Amino acid sequence: MLVIDKLREYVRENRDDIVGDLRSLIKHPSVSAQGIGIDECAGVLNGIMRDAGLESRIIRLEEGNPVVYGEAKGESDRTLLFYGHYDVQPAEPLDAWRYNPFSGIVTDDKVHGRGAADSKGNVIALVKAVKAMLDMNGTLPLNVKVLIEGEEEVSSVHLPGFVKEHADMLKADACVCFDGSLNPSGSPNIYAGLKGLLYVEFRVRTASVDMHSSLAPIAPNAAWTLTRLLNSIRRDGRIMVKGWYDDVRVPTKDDLTLLESLEYDVESIKKDYGVREFIGKVKGKVALKRLLFEPTCNIAGIYSGYVASGSKTVLPSEALAKVDFRLVYDQRPEELFRRLQDHISSLGFTDVEVTMLGSLEPSKTNPNARIVKAVASAASSVYSRKPSIFPNSWASGPDYVFTKILKMNSVWTGCSPAHANIHAPNEFTSVRNVLDGICYVSSMMQEFAR
Amino acid sequence: MLVIDKLREYVRENRDDIVGDLRSLIKHPSVSAQGIGIDECAGVLNGIMRDAGLESRIIRLEEGNPVVYGEAKGESDRTLLFYGHYDVQPAEPLDAWRYNPFSGIVTDDKVHGRGAADSKGNVIALVKAVKAMLDMNGTLPLNVKVLIEGEEEVSSVHLPGFVKEHADMLKADACVCFDGSLNPSGSPNIYAGLKGLLYVEFRVRTASVDMHSSLAPIAPNAAWTLTRLLNSIRRDGRIMVKGWYDDVRVPTKDDLTLLESLEYDVESIKKDYGVREFIGKVKGKVALKRLLFEPTCNIAGIYSGYVASGSKTVLPSEALAKVDFRLVYDQRPEELFRRLQDHISSLGFTDVEVTMLGSLEPSKTNPNARIVKAVASAASSVYSRKPSIFPNSWASGPDYVFTKILKMNSVWTGCSPAHANIHAPNEFTSVRNVLDGICYVSSMMQEFAR
Repeated sequence: MLVIDKLREYVRENRDDIVGDLRSLIKHPSVSAQGIGIDECAGVLNGIMRDAGLESRIIRLEEGNPVVYGEAKGESDRTLLFYGHYDVQPAEPLDAWRYNPFSGIVTDDKVHGRGAADSKGNVIALVKAVKAMLDMNGTLPLNVKVLIEGEEEVSSVHLPGFVKEHADMLKADACVCFDGSLNPSGSPNIYAGLKGLLYVEFRVRTASVDMHSSLAPIAPNAAWTLTRLLNSIRRDGRIMVKGWYDDVRVPTKDDLTLLESLEYDVESIKKDYGVREFIGKVKGKVALKRLLFEPTCNIAGIYSGYVASGSKTVLPSEALAKVDFRLVYDQRPEELFRRLQDHISSLGFTDVEVTMLGSLEPSKTNPNARIVKAVASAASSVYSRKPSIFPNSWASGPDYVFTKILKMNSVWTGCSPAHANIHAPNEFTSVRNVLDGICYVSSMMQEFAR
Repeated sequence: MLVIDKLREYVRENRDDIVGDLRSLIKHPSVSAQGIGIDECAGVLNGIMRDAGLESRIIRLEEGNPVVYGEAKGESDRTLLFYGHYDVQPAEPLDAWRYNPFSGIVTDDKVHGRGAADSKGNVIALVKAVKAMLDMNGTLPLNVKVLIEGEEEVSSVHLPGFVKEHADMLKADACVCFDGSLNPSGSPNIYAGLKGLLYVEFRVRTASVDMHSSLAPIAPNAAWTLTRLLNSIRRDGRIMVKGWYDDVRVPTKDDLTLLESLEYDVESIKKDYGVREFIGKVKGKVALKRLLFEPTCNIAGIYSGYVASGSKTVLPSEALAKVDFRLVYDQRPEELFRRLQDHISSLGFTDVEVTMLGSLEPSKTNPNARIVKAVASAASSVYSRKPSIFPNSWASGPDYVFTKILKMNSVWTGCSPAHANIHAPNEFTSVRNVLDGICYVSSMMQEFAR
């Protein structure tokens, strides 16, 4: 019997335990943006990790949500560091959910709830892979370190400090960030790099109280100031802030070669989300190239004045916008935030306050590195098809703490379903995805130990 | 004894009856936007009007809230039509009120409650003026017609139809819309015209569900579409929709002469609302000129995506904005709404839906008209100072049904206190304001009869 078949048998037999623990994680909200249920969820996770055979503990930080960290020795001298996160996005708008987002309801093969795919299903796959290897063989193929943080959805604000402080503890030959999804054809996406992020909030206040809108000819309107500001920042899809593109280093020649070989069906995004056309009517490889290598400026939220039913003639004195900027290698969020502040003051906006709510640097690993090959090989054997290796993801994450701070190679991958309504209502994963994920992580340990 | 002194004596003697009837009106909610208490309030008002000596009745419309209408013959052949409204704004937020908004509580000289100033105090002043003249002289100086509608706070949607249908009944030599306030110096504002209004709602939908913001390089964002659209409609304070200013007929030379003579302290708006500077740093007469004669495009509300605390990296599929346009003479809302629709499609916006939520045409009366002079003269004698006669108001109302449909001269004025928390919690009027208002209306009947 092949190793992979034994693994499949094992996960089938342990399905109830695995799904039960996943549901237990989902039932503990852990919404980092709203500070809901963090400690309870960390406690539950720590129990699941200990049960898997990891020497695990909750590490409380001076500020921020606790890290759950576990280790287990293996046969080889090699050490693989795994990264994941137990926190989730807010579930709002609640009335758009078919099922209670924190009930972990199972229907057929699906497990529903906030965090099912992003990323509690991945965390369970990761931890249960350790348990699977130990249960099956009594030992691990290499030393494993598992770091699960609780602030990924709020830009991993305390992770860089944590990693610097615990650099010795976290020493490893490579890192796998297990927090991703399969592509629509059913094989894992493997990213040799992630985009960075700069998340800001704009607050405009033009008067001390709202006014009757008949004063509009002379009284400044906060909503107008805000929309003018936003339009000054991005025009025709390009970010107009001076120097914004100065540090852009991608795509390299290697990146473009990898891009050509990719078989990612970017067009499927249209069907999945009900989008008629992409911006600029781009298609196929051109769309994919933009997706991977373009810095973005995205309005994540905007609010001002009266938005209930009917009409109210009010002139709003306050307005709010939340904007996320995705950064490509090697843009630096702190530098760009300063440039954004300069932009605002150079245009003479005086009633605007801009606050940085979070930031992540972009990361980059050589696509020919040993860890990339090991993970790709594991993916091929478990999913019976070639994985998609991307020069970098269009999403962001704290991968740079491993590549830039700990100076190790790192890949980003995961086992959640494609289009699982991540960050949106009706998020779900499937039991099959989680079980396959366990086989995937087990295989990559074996491959990297070789 | 002067006529005005006799009037003052009369209102002092009848204070209890006057205040009692005002409280009775306030105790009957009549919230048109919420359909609360309309019929009961109309019934109470009809009783007060009959008691004043008006031949009054409730006229039910096929659709919409009933009109209360009364007439009384007078000595002269001249006929004066008075307009008012018995409906009120919603009282929400209820917990912001010091007193129950529908109790009509009296403290010292103040009468508290929703509608006290807008406009039940005005209605009582108007009706009690008829009673005062009849009680004192046994007759009226001229024929009086009193039309009190129940939908002013919801854009007087059925008033144009009512007026067309009852044009003969409403025939008069001029109209006084008694639904206004004094200025901060204590004399009435008199408006020889009102701005029009076009209230629209924009809804943008770029996808069937919200997305993860990592798709921003290629997926259209509803909030961006909306902000781009809004910025295309108004730029540097000017409305960019083709032909928007084509029908602008103000200011005339007469308007500008009147403007020069006005002593309205426009700078006080800054202090009242905590505004640092007016748009374009305009001051004094320049600011007042803009306030009176500029068409506006005001964002009354905007909403999209995630606006709760913290950060969420979402790409919104829907966005909403409510915008009110104030129109100056002789812009027509239906025509401008078509132009707005053309603007949207000519710029290639395909995911935008625009709906008209309400409209009012602007109105204009020659500031040298007899009714303007009569009302101004009445104001001078009652308030012992020159009233402010404006070529038009910066606010909107259904004055055009009298000037355009019934083709009579009309002025807009009233007796409520300045800063009476109209449309806001803790609305009030003062007994003194109502008593002075009775003298004011009585005097204008006498002046116009002359």
